[in-house]
Amino acid sequence: MTLIKSLVNQDEFVGFYLLKELEVKQTNGTPPKDYFDIVMCDSSGQLSAKYWDVSAADKETFFPMGLVKIRGIVQTYRERLQVKITRIRKATENDGVSLTDFIRSAPIRPVDLVYTIKQVMASIQDDGIKTLVSYCVNKVDEKLMHYPAAKTHHHAYYAGLAYHMVRMLEIADFVCKQRPFLNADLLKAGIILHDIAKPEEMIAQLGIVTDYSVQGKLLGHISMASNWITEAAIHSGIDLQSERVIALQHLVLSHHNLGEWGSPVQPQTAEAVALHHIDALDAKLQMVEDALDSLPESEAWTPMIRGLENKPIYRTKL
Amino acid sequence: MTLIKSLVNQDEFVGFYLLKELEVKQTNGTPPKDYFDIVMCDSSGQLSAKYWDVSAADKETFFPMGLVKIRGIVQTYRERLQVKITRIRKATENDGVSLTDFIRSAPIRPVDLVYTIKQVMASIQDDGIKTLVSYCVNKVDEKLMHYPAAKTHHHAYYAGLAYHMVRMLEIADFVCKQRPFLNADLLKAGIILHDIAKPEEMIAQLGIVTDYSVQGKLLGHISMASNWITEAAIHSGIDLQSERVIALQHLVLSHHNLGEWGSPVQPQTAEAVALHHIDALDAKLQMVEDALDSLPESEAWTPMIRGLENKPIYRTKL
Amino acid sequence: MTLIKSLVNQDEFVGFYLLKELEVKQTNGTPPKDYFDIVMCDSSGQLSAKYWDVSAADKETFFPMGLVKIRGIVQTYRERLQVKITRIRKATENDGVSLTDFIRSAPIRPVDLVYTIKQVMASIQDDGIKTLVSYCVNKVDEKLMHYPAAKTHHHAYYAGLAYHMVRMLEIADFVCKQRPFLNADLLKAGIILHDIAKPEEMIAQLGIVTDYSVQGKLLGHISMASNWITEAAIHSGIDLQSERVIALQHLVLSHHNLGEWGSPVQPQTAEAVALHHIDALDAKLQMVEDALDSLPESEAWTPMIRGLENKPIYRTKL
Amino acid sequence: MTLIKSLVNQDEFVGFYLLKELEVKQTNGTPPKDYFDIVMCDSSGQLSAKYWDVSAADKETFFPMGLVKIRGIVQTYRERLQVKITRIRKATENDGVSLTDFIRSAPIRPVDLVYTIKQVMASIQDDGIKTLVSYCVNKVDEKLMHYPAAKTHHHAYYAGLAYHMVRMLEIADFVCKQRPFLNADLLKAGIILHDIAKPEEMIAQLGIVTDYSVQGKLLGHISMASNWITEAAIHSGIDLQSERVIALQHLVLSHHNLGEWGSPVQPQTAEAVALHHIDALDAKLQMVEDALDSLPESEAWTPMIRGLENKPIYRTKL
Amino acid sequence: MTLIKSLVNQDEFVGFYLLKELEVKQTNGTPPKDYFDIVMCDSSGQLSAKYWDVSAADKETFFPMGLVKIRGIVQTYRERLQVKITRIRKATENDGVSLTDFIRSAPIRPVDLVYTIKQVMASIQDDGIKTLVSYCVNKVDEKLMHYPAAKTHHHAYYAGLAYHMVRMLEIADFVCKQRPFLNADLLKAGIILHDIAKPEEMIAQLGIVTDYSVQGKLLGHISMASNWITEAAIHSGIDLQSERVIALQHLVLSHHNLGEWGSPVQPQTAEAVALHHIDALDAKLQMVEDALDSLPESEAWTPMIRGLENKPIYRTKL
Amino acid sequence: MTLIKSLVNQDEFVGFYLLKELEVKQTNGTPPKDYFDIVMCDSSGQLSAKYWDVSAADKETFFPMGLVKIRGIVQTYRERLQVKITRIRKATENDGVSLTDFIRSAPIRPVDLVYTIKQVMASIQDDGIKTLVSYCVNKVDEKLMHYPAAKTHHHAYYAGLAYHMVRMLEIADFVCKQRPFLNADLLKAGIILHDIAKPEEMIAQLGIVTDYSVQGKLLGHISMASNWITEAAIHSGIDLQSERVIALQHLVLSHHNLGEWGSPVQPQTAEAVALHHIDALDAKLQMVEDALDSLPESEAWTPMIRGLENKPIYRTKL
Repeated sequence: MTLIKSLVNQDEFVGFYLLKELEVKQTNGTPPKDYFDIVMCDSSGQLSAKYWDVSAADKETFFPMGLVKIRGIVQTYRERLQVKITRIRKATENDGVSLTDFIRSAPIRPVDLVYTIKQVMASIQDDGIKTLVSYCVNKVDEKLMHYPAAKTHHHAYYAGLAYHMVRMLEIADFVCKQRPFLNADLLKAGIILHDIAKPEEMIAQLGIVTDYSVQGKLLGHISMASNWITEAAIHSGIDLQSERVIALQHLVLSHHNLGEWGSPVQPQTAEAVALHHIDALDAKLQMVEDALDSLPESEAWTPMIRGLENKPIYRTKL
Repeated sequence: MTLIKSLVNQDEFVGFYLLKELEVKQTNGTPPKDYFDIVMCDSSGQLSAKYWDVSAADKETFFPMGLVKIRGIVQTYRERLQVKITRIRKATENDGVSLTDFIRSAPIRPVDLVYTIKQVMASIQDDGIKTLVSYCVNKVDEKLMHYPAAKTHHHAYYAGLAYHMVRMLEIADFVCKQRPFLNADLLKAGIILHDIAKPEEMIAQLGIVTDYSVQGKLLGHISMASNWITEAAIHSGIDLQSERVIALQHLVLSHHNLGEWGSPVQPQTAEAVALHHIDALDAKLQMVEDALDSLPESEAWTPMIRGLENKPIYRTKL
Repeated sequence: MTLIKSLVNQDEFVGFYLLKELEVKQTNGTPPKDYFDIVMCDSSGQLSAKYWDVSAADKETFFPMGLVKIRGIVQTYRERLQVKITRIRKATENDGVSLTDFIRSAPIRPVDLVYTIKQVMASIQDDGIKTLVSYCVNKVDEKLMHYPAAKTHHHAYYAGLAYHMVRMLEIADFVCKQRPFLNADLLKAGIILHDIAKPEEMIAQLGIVTDYSVQGKLLGHISMASNWITEAAIHSGIDLQSERVIALQHLVLSHHNLGEWGSPVQPQTAEAVALHHIDALDAKLQMVEDALDSLPESEAWTPMIRGLENKPIYRTKL
Repeated sequence: MTLIKSLVNQDEFVGFYLLKELEVKQTNGTPPKDYFDIVMCDSSGQLSAKYWDVSAADKETFFPMGLVKIRGIVQTYRERLQVKITRIRKATENDGVSLTDFIRSAPIRPVDLVYTIKQVMASIQDDGIKTLVSYCVNKVDEKLMHYPAAKTHHHAYYAGLAYHMVRMLEIADFVCKQRPFLNADLLKAGIILHDIAKPEEMIAQLGIVTDYSVQGKLLGHISMASNWITEAAIHSGIDLQSERVIALQHLVLSHHNLGEWGSPVQPQTAEAVALHHIDALDAKLQMVEDALDSLPESEAWTPMIRGLENKPIYRTKL
Repeated sequence: MTLIKSLVNQDEFVGFYLLKELEVKQTNGTPPKDYFDIVMCDSSGQLSAKYWDVSAADKETFFPMGLVKIRGIVQTYRERLQVKITRIRKATENDGVSLTDFIRSAPIRPVDLVYTIKQVMASIQDDGIKTLVSYCVNKVDEKLMHYPAAKTHHHAYYAGLAYHMVRMLEIADFVCKQRPFLNADLLKAGIILHDIAKPEEMIAQLGIVTDYSVQGKLLGHISMASNWITEAAIHSGIDLQSERVIALQHLVLSHHNLGEWGSPVQPQTAEAVALHHIDALDAKLQMVEDALDSLPESEAWTPMIRGLENKPIYRTKL
Repeated sequence: MTLIKSLVNQDEFVGFYLLKELEVKQTNGTPPKDYFDIVMCDSSGQLSAKYWDVSAADKETFFPMGLVKIRGIVQTYRERLQVKITRIRKATENDGVSLTDFIRSAPIRPVDLVYTIKQVMASIQDDGIKTLVSYCVNKVDEKLMHYPAAKTHHHAYYAGLAYHMVRMLEIADFVCKQRPFLNADLLKAGIILHDIAKPEEMIAQLGIVTDYSVQGKLLGHISMASNWITEAAIHSGIDLQSERVIALQHLVLSHHNLGEWGSPVQPQTAEAVALHHIDALDAKLQMVEDALDSLPESEAWTPMIRGLENKPIYRTKL
C-alpha cells in the first residue's frame, strides 16, 4: 500500500484511504455528468482526487469520513498533484483496516497525554487553583483524548490539543527551574486552561475540524474559557473576587498577547508573559516540524506557512 | 462667587471650591519649602493652583476632596491659567455649601436616569433576558446612581454612566422603529450591559475616577461583564448554552468593534452592529458637547480631544 | 413564477428574469463552442447561470439588461448555486412584465424619497446654506430618483442613494432634538451633500453600478462635492471665504473620518462628528438588513460582509 | 556681532537680534516676579533666552518680531543652550540694522524665484492650463514673494515656498527630458499648484508661520487648491468637466500619495506619480541640507528629523 | 507578422513567438487529454495560449524558452484575451529569427549601459570607494549586461538592472549640481551598489526571472551587498572600520527606507536619503512608462500596478 | 549603609554610592547658582538626586562614574522619589569600597558565563560552524565579560549579554531534546552570534550603555554580525556560498522576526524560528524578573515596561 506522501506524478497505485471530504459535482458538458470531488487522506498526508462518471448507486455508497479502497493515477493539475480515481469500493471488515490508521495523530498516545496532564494537575499545590482547573478539564471530558488544537494553524490533528498542552508543560517545567520567581501553579494552570474551550469552539471528529460552533464564532475560546472559570468558581464555592480566579482568567484572556490577535487584555503578570511566549514557541516550532515532516524528500522548501509570517521553511542540508 | 470657567488672567477672586487633587511638594530653594500643588474645581471646570509657604498645621488641615474657601489671583504659566492662592480655609457648616454643588454632573438627576433604565428593563419582553439584565444591574447597585462612564474619555462625571445608557436607549428606541427587524430586547439589554462592569473596573468617588481596580486592569470591563452574565445565568437557572446567554455575551464582548480597541470578537449579530455604532455616536457627540461647554466664550477652538482622532473642535459662528 | 431567493438545489423552474450580466464565452472542447455566462436577477436576488450551445441567432438576440423568460435547473457548482438554462426567450409586450419589477429597489417609492429630501431642504433656515444645497441637488437632478449609494458596499440598488439620505435625515432629526447644541441646518445640509457627487462618480442604470467615471476615479466623490460647493457659491454670489461655505465643505471632506478611508481632513465641527457617525450607523445597519433579507430562511449565517470587518452576520433565533 | 549659530556655552556676547517670540511669565517665588521668556533669532539660527526682573516699562517696550540689542551669557539648561539676557534695548534707526537681515531666507532672491516661476508659467503651451495656473498664482499674489513652504517641516523660511517650487521645476525639467512621454505642461502646472494654497492655509510673516487659518484647518491646502481650480475654470470659462481641469485637480489632490498622508485619491496619471516623487525628493533633501547647515561644526549628528522617519542625519567625514 | 500588443479579439494570425512558459496539463474529460498551457511572448508583450490535443511527439518537441511559429485565433476568456493555437512548429535556422528579437529589452544597448556605468565608476575620485565599487561590479561580471532589475515589479526585462542604474546616475548627476553639499562619490557608488547583488538573489535568463536563489531568499540582496562590501574591503586591504566602508554599507542597507520594506536601518546620511528618493522616482516612473507602453491604444486605463499603491494609471488625452 | 531600593520618602541616610550621571546646571534665580543634577546608584537600583550650592572646587572634584559618600534626605518630586544631597565627598582608598560593588550585575559570575559559552562552542560538532563562531566571539574578546545586552530594554547590566546567551543556550538545549529534528549546532551558533556585534554597536562601561557607536547607528548589530560572518569565512577559508555560512547569516539577520523590528528577512529555517522565539521568551521574562526585583515590597505594580506592550506587571499575592 502506498503512502500518500510518497506518491509522485504518473504513479499508478492501489490502497486503502480515508475520504476526508467528498462532494457530488456536475461537469460542464451537455448533458452535465455527476462526479466526485474528493479529498483522500492517510496518516502521511492528503491529496485532492476526482472520480468521474459517478452512478446513482455510487452516490448512495460513498460518504465523507468513510474508508475506501482506491485504484488511481497521479496527475498534475495547476502545478499540484491530483488523483484520477479509476476504481473505488468501500472497505469491509475483512480488509482489516481501521479508521484510526488513516488519520494524522500526535506522536504520543492520547491516553498517555491525558495521563500526563492529569499528573500535572495533581501536582498543583494550591487547592483552589487545582479545583478550578479540574472543573474545566472535566467539562471537555473525553474530547481531550482526540481534539486537535486548531483547524489548520498548528497541531491540527488527532489529540493535537493534548499534545500541545503536554509539550508546553514540559517547557514550563524547565523554565520554572530556570526562574524560580515564577509561580509554577499558575503557569501549569494557565497552560492547561489557555485553549481548554477549543473543543466547544470547534466542531471536530477524528482530529479534523469541520466548522466552528455558533458559540465559538460569537464568543471565541478565550472568552469562553474565562466564563468557564467563573462557572467553576461558583460551582466550587470559590470567591469570584479572589486573586486566584482573577489571575487564572487573566492568563486565559491575555494569552494571545495583543488585541489584534484576539486578547482583550495584555499580559500583566509574570506567568501571563511566560504563558504567551511558551505557547508561541511550541506552536511555531510545531508548524515547522509538521511542514518539514510532510515535505517530499526531494524538495527543500515547504509551502508558505500562514502562521510564520506567510513564509516557507527551507530544509538545510547541514 | 466666581465660577472657574469664567476666570481670566489677572483676576483676583474669592470663593468656595473643591480640592480635587492636593499634593505637598518642595521648592528648589535652600532650604526647600513646602507648598501645595492643587487642582481646584467647581461644577463649571477645574484649574491648577499653588499655595506657597505651607505650614505644618496646613498639612494637617487640607486634603483632597475637601471643600475650601480660597482667595487667589489668576496668572499664566506655560500658556495655561494657574491660580496663586493667597488665602485658604476649610469650609464650615455655616458656609452653607455642599460637596455636590462642586462637582460636574450629568444634566439629568441620577434618580431619574436610574428610573428610566429600570423602566426600559421592565419593558424587555423576553423573561430570560430581563432576568439576566436585572441580575447584572443589581450587582452594581447604587453605583449606577453616581459612577462616571470613563476616567477622562467621555461622560467623565457624576452619573455619567447612567446618563450614557439613557441617551443610548433613546437612540436605540428610535432606530428600532426605523428598522423593525432589530430585536429590541437584545438591543436594550446590550446597551444596559455593555459598560455595566465599569463600576468594578474603576475606582471613583463623586464621579471622579482615581484609579483602575486590579481586576479592572487584569480583566477589563468587557470580559468582566461577560463573566457576570455567566454568573447571572447560573444563579437564575438559565442554560449557559442558550442563545440568549450567548447573544448577550456577544453584545458585550464585541461592542468595541475591533481587537485593537479591546473586543476579542467582532460584531456578528444585527444588534451587536447597532450597539457599537449607537455607542460611538453617543460617546463622540458627548465629547464634543462637553468640550464646547467648557470652552470660554471668547475662544473658537477646543483643546485636542484624544477620542476624536486627537483633533480639536471648532465652534462655528453660524 | 419562482423568486430567485427561494430556489434550492435541484429545483426545475420557469419564470421571467432580468439579464444583469451576459457574456459570450467558449468551452475548452475541440472545437470550442460558444456559451452564455449569465447573471440573472429579480427583485429578490441574483444567481449565476450558464446557457450552453449558443447559436449565432442567440448572440444577436440576448443582451445585458434585457428581460427574458427562462426554463432552468438549479445545480451546485463550487458550493454555490448555479442555474443551467435549458430554454430562454425574450420577454414580449404580451408577457406584461416590466423592467422595474426585476430590480432591487429601496423599500420606499423614489418619488416619496425625493419629496422628503426637498421638504428637508425647504426647512433649512439659513438662506445661504439652503441655496448652496439646492444648487448641488439640482446638479444631479433626476439621478437622485434612481441612483444607488454604492457599487456593492451598501444601499446598492435603485434609489439607494435617496433612501440612505432620508434615513440619515430621520436619525439626524432625532439627534438634534436630543442635543440642541447641534446646528440642524448644517447637519441636514451635510447629510444631503455628503454623497451628492456619487451620481457623477459612478455610472449606473437601474440602480446597478457598472463602472466609475474617469472623474470619479481621479477626484473621488468627496473632492467633487467640495468643488460643487465652490461652484454653487460662485453661481449664487456667496462669499467663498464665508463660514457657511467652509463649514459645508468641511462636512463633505471629513465625512469618511480618516485619511485612510478617503477624507483629507478629520471632523472638527460638532456637525461633522455627528455626520460621520450617523452615516456609519445607517450604512452598517443597512448592510446587515440587506444581507439578512437575502439570506435563505434555512440558513443562519450570511456570507462575509466586507464593510463589517469582513465578518458574517448570524441570525439569532430569539 | 556674534551669529547665534556660533555661540557656545559660557560665551558672553553683545549683538542685534530679532525677538521671534516673547512672553511675559511669573517666577515661582513669593512674591512672583515678571520675566520675559524669549526666542531670539538671527539669519543663522535661534536660541531660547530669559530676561529676569522685567519692569513695567519693559513690558510696554518689547514685543515679538521687534529688533533689539542684547547683552547676554550662554548657559546650559536641560542639555540645551539658553541665553541669560543681562541687558536689552530696542534697535534704533541709527543702528543701521533691518529686519530682513535677521530672518532665515531661501538662498535665492525672492524676486528671482518669482521671475523663474512666471517664466515657466509662460512656457506652458496649453492655453487652458496656463490660464488656470495663472489664476491661482494671482490669488496668492505677493505672498509668493515671502511665504514659507511649511511651519517646521521643510523650507520653513522666507520665500521657502517659491524656492521649493523652483527647485522642483528644475528637477521636472530634467526628468521630462529623460522621459519624453511625460506631459511637461501638466507636470509644470502640478508643481506650481500643488502647494499654492499654503499662503491661505497658514498665517505667516517674515517667513515664520504663527498659526493655521480656520479654513486651513477645516479644509487643508490640498482641497483648497482643488476648489481654486474650480474657481479658476468658472472665471475663465473653461469647462469644469474638461480633462485639463480634472487632470490638474487630480495632480493637486493626489500629491501626498496616500490617504494617511492627506491625499483623498492616489496618483493615477504619469504626471501625478512624477509630481509626488519630485516633491518628496526635493523636500527630504532640503530637510537634510537645512539640518546640516545649522549643525555646529564640532558635531556630527543633527537632531532627529520628524520628516525623515524621525532619524538624525550623520555628517560623514569623507 | 503580428505583434502581440496589437492583437484583438477574434483575430486570426500567423507569426513567430517565444514560448515564455509551457506546461503539459490534462483536460477534465474521460479519458483526460493532454494539452499545452502556454505563455507566448514577443518584444511587445505576452499572451496566455492553449494548444489542445497534444501528441506524444509534441511533448518531446516543445519547451519553455523555445522559438516557434504559431497559427492561432484570439478569444476572450474571463475578460482577458487568450490564444487558441491551431498550428505550431519549431522555428528553424532558415526562418531567420533570433531569440533576442522576442524578448523585452531596455531601450539602450546593454553594451552602452555598461560602458556608461564603467565611466561613472572611473569618475569616482576617492580611490577607496572606487576600489570597493569595482570589486562588487566585477563579482556580477557579465550578468550586468542582461539581468533585469526585478521579477515583475519594475525594469523586469533584458538589461533592466543596468538601465535602472544608468537612469539613476543621470538624475544623481543633476541633483548633485543642484545641491553641491552632496558627496557625489558616495551617491554614485550607492547607486551602482544598491541592487548589485540582485544577479545572485534572482535566477534569470534573457531578462526573465524564473526564481529566487536559496541565498536570495535567506539573505536578500540588501544584506548580500553589505556582505560583498565587507569582502571587497578585505580583499582590497581597506579598513573595515573606515568611514568609507561603513558609509557604503549604510547606503545599501538603508535604501528601501523602512523596516517593513526590507531595510534594517533607515537613511541617516544625506546621500542615503538622496539614494532612496532617486531610486523611488526612477522605479515608479518606469512602472508607469512600461504600463502605458504596453497598453493597447484603444484603452485609457492600465491594469492595477502593485508598486503604485495597487492603482491603475490613466492616459490623459491632453 | 542603606540600599537605594529600600529608601522611602523622608528617609535621612548616609552611604556610599556611584555617580552614574552628573551634570552641572543653573537655577532660575538671580543670579543663577550652579547645582549638580545627579543619578546615584548602587547594586539595588538608582535614584535621581540634587546637590545645591555647588562650589568651584566641587565642579573639579566630582565626575560621572565616580564613587562618593553621600548624606541626604529622600523627598518626593512629581510623584517620584528624589534625593536632596546635604553632604558629599569622594570615596577614598580607606573606605574599602570598590566600583563593582555598586553596579548591577548578572546573577552569575562573568567568568562562569564565558566558560559556559566556550564549553557550548566546543560542543559544536560541525567544524566549519565552530570556526565561524569562534572567530566572531574572539572579535568581541573580553567585552563578553562585562557588556550589557541592551541600553535599557533587557539585561541592561554588567555581563548582561553573556547572561542572556547562557540562559538561551539552556533553553535551546532543552528544546533540542524535545524536538530532535532541530540542528543543535546551528541553534547554538545562532544564539551565540545573534547579538555578538552589540559590543561594537554600543559604547558601554561597567554594564552601562552611554551611547551607540557611529557604526552601530548606521549599520545596526544585525547587519554588523552578518558582515562579521563574511569576514570570519574569508579569514578561515570557508566558502562564502556554503550552506553553513548562509544558514548562520540567515539566523542572525532574521532573529528580530519582522522588518519593522529590524530584520531584513523573516525566519525561514527551523532553527531561525526557534532562535527568535527562544530570544523572545528569555528577554521578556528577564524584563519581568528585573522589574519585579526592583519593585519596593510595599507595591504591587511595576512601572510600565516598554518591551511588554508598554504594560506594567502585577505581583500576585498567590
